[in-house]
Amino acid sequence: MSTRSRNPEPSNVTVLRPRTGAALTGGPLEADKSAGVEHSPDVLAALAYHEFPRPGKLEVVPTKPVRNQRDLSLAYSPGVAEPCREIARDQSLVNRYTGRRNLVAVVSNGTAVLGLGDLGPYACKPVMEGKAVLFKRFADVDVFDIEIDARDPERIIETIAALEPTFGGINLEDIKAPECFIVEKALKMRMAIPVFHDDQHGTAIISAAALMNAAELQGRKLADLEVVCMGAGASAVACMELWIRLGVDRDRITMIDSRGIVRDGRPGVDAYKAQFARPANDPRRTLADAMRGADVLIGLSSGGRVPSELLKTMNKNPIVFVLANPDPEIPYDEAVAMRPDAIVATGRSDYPNQVNNVLGFPFIFRGALDVAATSINEEMKLAAAYALAELAREPVPDVVNEAYGGEPLVFGPRYIIPKPVDARVLPWVSSAVAQAAIETGVAQEPLDIPAYRARLAQKAGLTSS
Amino acid sequence: MSTRSRNPEPSNVTVLRPRTGAALTGGPLEADKSAGVEHSPDVLAALAYHEFPRPGKLEVVPTKPVRNQRDLSLAYSPGVAEPCREIARDQSLVNRYTGRRNLVAVVSNGTAVLGLGDLGPYACKPVMEGKAVLFKRFADVDVFDIEIDARDPERIIETIAALEPTFGGINLEDIKAPECFIVEKALKMRMAIPVFHDDQHGTAIISAAALMNAAELQGRKLADLEVVCMGAGASAVACMELWIRLGVDRDRITMIDSRGIVRDGRPGVDAYKAQFARPANDPRRTLADAMRGADVLIGLSSGGRVPSELLKTMNKNPIVFVLANPDPEIPYDEAVAMRPDAIVATGRSDYPNQVNNVLGFPFIFRGALDVAATSINEEMKLAAAYALAELAREPVPDVVNEAYGGEPLVFGPRYIIPKPVDARVLPWVSSAVAQAAIETGVAQEPLDIPAYRARLAQKAGLTSS
Repeated sequence: MSTRSRNPEPSNVTVLRPRTGAALTGGPLEADKSAGVEHSPDVLAALAYHEFPRPGKLEVVPTKPVRNQRDLSLAYSPGVAEPCREIARDQSLVNRYTGRRNLVAVVSNGTAVLGLGDLGPYACKPVMEGKAVLFKRFADVDVFDIEIDARDPERIIETIAALEPTFGGINLEDIKAPECFIVEKALKMRMAIPVFHDDQHGTAIISAAALMNAAELQGRKLADLEVVCMGAGASAVACMELWIRLGVDRDRITMIDSRGIVRDGRPGVDAYKAQFARPANDPRRTLADAMRGADVLIGLSSGGRVPSELLKTMNKNPIVFVLANPDPEIPYDEAVAMRPDAIVATGRSDYPNQVNNVLGFPFIFRGALDVAATSINEEMKLAAAYALAELAREPVPDVVNEAYGGEPLVFGPRYIIPKPVDARVLPWVSSAVAQAAIETGVAQEPLDIPAYRARLAQKAGLTSS
Repeated sequence: MSTRSRNPEPSNVTVLRPRTGAALTGGPLEADKSAGVEHSPDVLAALAYHEFPRPGKLEVVPTKPVRNQRDLSLAYSPGVAEPCREIARDQSLVNRYTGRRNLVAVVSNGTAVLGLGDLGPYACKPVMEGKAVLFKRFADVDVFDIEIDARDPERIIETIAALEPTFGGINLEDIKAPECFIVEKALKMRMAIPVFHDDQHGTAIISAAALMNAAELQGRKLADLEVVCMGAGASAVACMELWIRLGVDRDRITMIDSRGIVRDGRPGVDAYKAQFARPANDPRRTLADAMRGADVLIGLSSGGRVPSELLKTMNKNPIVFVLANPDPEIPYDEAVAMRPDAIVATGRSDYPNQVNNVLGFPFIFRGALDVAATSINEEMKLAAAYALAELAREPVPDVVNEAYGGEPLVFGPRYIIPKPVDARVLPWVSSAVAQAAIETGVAQEPLDIPAYRARLAQKAGLTSS
């Protein structure tokens, strides 16, 4: 077995998250396990966390008493027949007598796992379990992680569609492009519950919030921004589509894939990339061509893909979102050193301005499920982005500042997006999403938004009960 | 909406399980819900149990710490990449780093829900959640309840087969015959994890244990027994197949369906029933014909289907298992009054000798999962039946006697099968199943059986740690 090359340990890891990236970057690496594995301490810590004391990260526990025969006769036969009869009479009562409404499937076939590629459905299970942990921890959403042995879009679609009676929502995850587009589109048409591919829309929503605030701070209008999008996968396409809905001009977006600038008539431009193709007569060909005079760089590709020197050719007060994980397209410190006038964001928690999907999916589903939304539509996604952007402009509670240890967080170039541990995200985002669902007519059970928001604040521990 | 007719409250319910059957039998019934429902108190209690304080009966919780950013960086990115890489390298490590091995899918399409019939996949969700509760309560097996919108066997098979990376085992449930036979057979061929249709094999295993002990107590050899099987569904076919493996003579079984005795050339005899068809020239036609001179009646049909007078025509010291739920084919008291020399068993917990599937499935899967068995084969089923039969011959611990309040339990006509609350069932049955898996070569990870049995006894609280 060959070892993999890794980057050196980052030098300025914080006290709060000392190991960010470390598990992926430190020390000696595995040899063949049967020949005696040599792992770095960080890798061993990650493996031990997953293995002990009980393999995996999830457990399914009863929420109702099961102390004695009477309890069991309610949980199972004969008492269980009563909710069955009620649901057979009125299918919507499944949300009243079962956990379905609070239950989301995180579904993957493992074809695009993290930044690791096509590892298959078995190897992606730790990620899907991890997603379940985040859903529960941040928004009390229950998740079954579902790993499916299916690569063909038709088979993926048929499998997931058949599961509709089980779940209140479907979170697609780590399915490669272009299959993910086909699958999501078909399932949205076919299923009466929210279907949401987080790799696309999660990043799109969080980066949209960050973009709005960065543009505000840099004194720029979205419609005027020249945007370079490094990467042309599912996430890049979804980000650009949402940014356009915010006001970015499609004609000012230049998308780059491994062959250079995406343009009409070039080989390797599929129907999805084609939405962003430059005219065939665009004289530019390379990333360097595109960066000259750009206002925004968004990286959705992989670590170190952009030479930092290219930042010098951007316009003044640029916006630089280098979101590849764990290693950004340009290291944060290099980007800031090269362009002190830039607002820089990454996907890492150990630098300012982390664009982290966990700010989105738990709260978006929370809001959608609480109004029994039949979908998560564009308006709901935009509502989540606006809520996050607005929250970042609010004064930051002491408890959040303390969790981040260093300088107090104040809206500005080093704080354009809320922190995941900020308990206010739940009431802000979930209520905004629920409201948008109601206003767009996809909420089957509308509720009073101010009261709902107050309940969420209480749930988040922000008010006394 | 019409109300349903119900039987009166049974008169001799015990203190331990006062409401057995009551939720299905008591008081005034529902009208249209929107017009104001009127439910009996028992029905209301069952509905309230399912609705409050949180709809449903299950919750998915993290088993690992998620207190701070460090924990989350292990549960999710970047730490989670390590187990992903390990599993990509060696697929079997999925059992080491995820919860898969301890995770069973309880899968139904709702076509044969309890005794209620074809209620569909939404209305069966309370039952599947209930099954998950029992799996967890009795054997610490985690369950995702999976309700699928699929009636065609091919679609059921394709859906479940695609889920193999998710689960360590598949428990099929409440799928009607003959589809259930087709589905189980195909999935057993196709999947490398245990596939077990509990409606068939669960009842078969528990009734087999009860039969062995009843025959012993009645001083009869299995090979000599004349058996009448009332019912010819999935459960009846599976019971008779397992009884034959125990030693019952196929030619001495008479199976009865709604048209009378199953025999060659009669209409309505499918391939499954045909295995038990009497010769075309058998002069008998009716249940009454079959009962004359029989030694065993097993009822796997529905409440009140056998006139108790027919018991009089059975041989001396008969064995009467009337297992329809919640109402047996003949009420327990009537059967005993009619034939004081009989050993009578039912599916009810409020009478002696309850044949209850919960004695089987949690412990069978526990044993199968703990050795990573690729299937649950006939030998493993028989091992479970023998273990249960042997356990019933052991002295009963005080704690079990106390739970059942009345007369001390002693092996005999009123105690032929262990009680579900008996903590010894876990070490007895699970170790027997694991051992059979090892001996038949389906255990991928054999273990030391005496040590395993000791660990299970400790887990069950039978020894100090």
